[in-house]
Amino acid sequence: MIGRTTRSEEEVLEAIERRRRRPHVKLMDERITLSHGAGGRSSHVLIETVFARAFDNPALAELGDAAVVDAGGAPLAISTDTYVVRPLDFPGGDIGSLAVHGTINDLAVSGARPCFLALGVVLEEGLPVSDLQRYVASMAQAAAGAGVAIVTGDTKVVERGKADGLYVSTTGIGVREGHRLSPMAIRPGDRVLCSGTIGDHGMAIMVARGGLELEADLRSDSAPLHELAGALRAAAGENLRCMSDPTRGGVATVLNELAMSAEVAIVLDEASIPVRPAVAGACEILGIDPLYVANEGKLLAVVAPEAEAEALAALRGHPLGTDAAVVGEVRAEPPGMVVLETSFGGSRVVDMLAGDPLPRIC
Amino acid sequence: MIGRTTRSEEEVLEAIERRRRRPHVKLMDERITLSHGAGGRSSHVLIETVFARAFDNPALAELGDAAVVDAGGAPLAISTDTYVVRPLDFPGGDIGSLAVHGTINDLAVSGARPCFLALGVVLEEGLPVSDLQRYVASMAQAAAGAGVAIVTGDTKVVERGKADGLYVSTTGIGVREGHRLSPMAIRPGDRVLCSGTIGDHGMAIMVARGGLELEADLRSDSAPLHELAGALRAAAGENLRCMSDPTRGGVATVLNELAMSAEVAIVLDEASIPVRPAVAGACEILGIDPLYVANEGKLLAVVAPEAEAEALAALRGHPLGTDAAVVGEVRAEPPGMVVLETSFGGSRVVDMLAGDPLPRIC
Repeated sequence: MIGRTTRSEEEVLEAIERRRRRPHVKLMDERITLSHGAGGRSSHVLIETVFARAFDNPALAELGDAAVVDAGGAPLAISTDTYVVRPLDFPGGDIGSLAVHGTINDLAVSGARPCFLALGVVLEEGLPVSDLQRYVASMAQAAAGAGVAIVTGDTKVVERGKADGLYVSTTGIGVREGHRLSPMAIRPGDRVLCSGTIGDHGMAIMVARGGLELEADLRSDSAPLHELAGALRAAAGENLRCMSDPTRGGVATVLNELAMSAEVAIVLDEASIPVRPAVAGACEILGIDPLYVANEGKLLAVVAPEAEAEALAALRGHPLGTDAAVVGEVRAEPPGMVVLETSFGGSRVVDMLAGDPLPRIC
Repeated sequence: MIGRTTRSEEEVLEAIERRRRRPHVKLMDERITLSHGAGGRSSHVLIETVFARAFDNPALAELGDAAVVDAGGAPLAISTDTYVVRPLDFPGGDIGSLAVHGTINDLAVSGARPCFLALGVVLEEGLPVSDLQRYVASMAQAAAGAGVAIVTGDTKVVERGKADGLYVSTTGIGVREGHRLSPMAIRPGDRVLCSGTIGDHGMAIMVARGGLELEADLRSDSAPLHELAGALRAAAGENLRCMSDPTRGGVATVLNELAMSAEVAIVLDEASIPVRPAVAGACEILGIDPLYVANEGKLLAVVAPEAEAEALAALRGHPLGTDAAVVGEVRAEPPGMVVLETSFGGSRVVDMLAGDPLPRIC
């Protein structure tokens, strides 16, 4: 057992190193567009060509939800996210709770126990102090609910018009527990699980922006996933390959990233993917595929086939995972691709998000 | 020796706890103004009333340059800063190098060895990719020069006009070494040292903004202070009480914060404070006191009187500390105040920065 763990860890590190050395994609754009912030293909290319190349190091090369590092002998995970969601308030949350949940979740899906948050805010001149107090209270409540302390922060102010009320950056520091989770550990035959309905956050934001004439009751699923992730880890043990939270770019984009990292194919079963009827309806009206819509309280997990039942039971046993489902499986071919087997018996390739149908969703 | 350290650590923790429990100041403003981001009194009140009160915890209560925490058994320091400097390029640096140096310095003055950086950027739609590449290269160079790895990041894009090119958030994680440094450890009789000339960064930004008709050759002092801080710690040992980097709000504001935290008076000797002639001249023309101007490559240190000579020698022995000087001393009365003894033999109270003569300096 120990031998196997060690080998797997080595294999993971080798795969990260291979990724670091593979031929670079090319960034063709001359100017930044909203697509570069959408979490889809443009974001991916920007990050790989501009940031990862310049900062080249093994922790960054994995491009996971959090960086996996050791500091002073402690196994840490570090994650950072900036929130520019518009509007600042939406059904199911606000920029404060979102900024705390989002960063906690990046740590949780990396196999870490979230411990500390650092907070940076850019405030727009003229923002009512009472609004700020409300968002700060929302952050405090979300952090306390997850047992995480906000231990340091920074406040900057820019002139009227130079920000939309406020932008929030949260960086999370967690302590890794158990074995190393990594997309590089995925193998053909593995199962793909989704912890619940998809698309709730993104569609709630769309409705909150108004002008849609939709009467659907849509709420963001924003929630802290550390307990759900912990339950899954406890149930699946070393059979848990990796987890990820499908935020910007949605399930489709995250699964494409996993498939590319692991050099495997992921085959999704359309009928098994949970989508709330109101979300499906709103997506249909707007011509948006829920596979590309952001989630803020869901996780995707890849487990070895022998752990499928326990993993699913663990997810369904937690209040945040009652709608969990096995949504697909991993195959060897075609590597780096996500394929959807539709309800009508056909199949189609599911690419990463291109363009940005839903800007500033988080 | 061990007994003394332990007692002192306890005293520090008690003082932090007292600070947490003291009567709260009141925030009178109804809207956010540029002053709230200037690092002076308004920032201080905003942070104490809105953020520290809502997030109430011991690590935050100290309101130091970095939070002092333990994670997974490792003694860590965590610091975060958001950079909204305008213009993005200035003599002596750019937003990229500044964002790396600034966060490294917050860790260094907290007695930590900087290890990792997390990076969040908000990009304005339309920013030339070549500009972004230049700032990223500048970050990479600054990080490599300081032996720090940028291990994770996040990229968001906002519409044209909703940011000034880019805003950068950097969070640093360092490993604390040696005894705990804290303003709470300051005692009457201690000496205050400054590692070099003051006001260089802020005045360079003023000149870079143009329209000042100044021909002075002013450059930012932006530089990583971890080696300088390490040399000082090695030389002064347990006689080093604390360090701080006088960025926004300048030397005057930082010393006020130290005096308030330690409930002591700090008496400055005006004649001994190093100011470059070009900076002094520009300040005089603009009616700005260099004590309130931001620095990005200087540190202030408080040491026990018996360590004064070694501490000064250690600073002067490093290329970034050649102009170091003993600039003041600590007295018991009047507590919480900074007093300047002028070159003419008079004395005046030096308050925290009020208002914001130099917005968006970092």
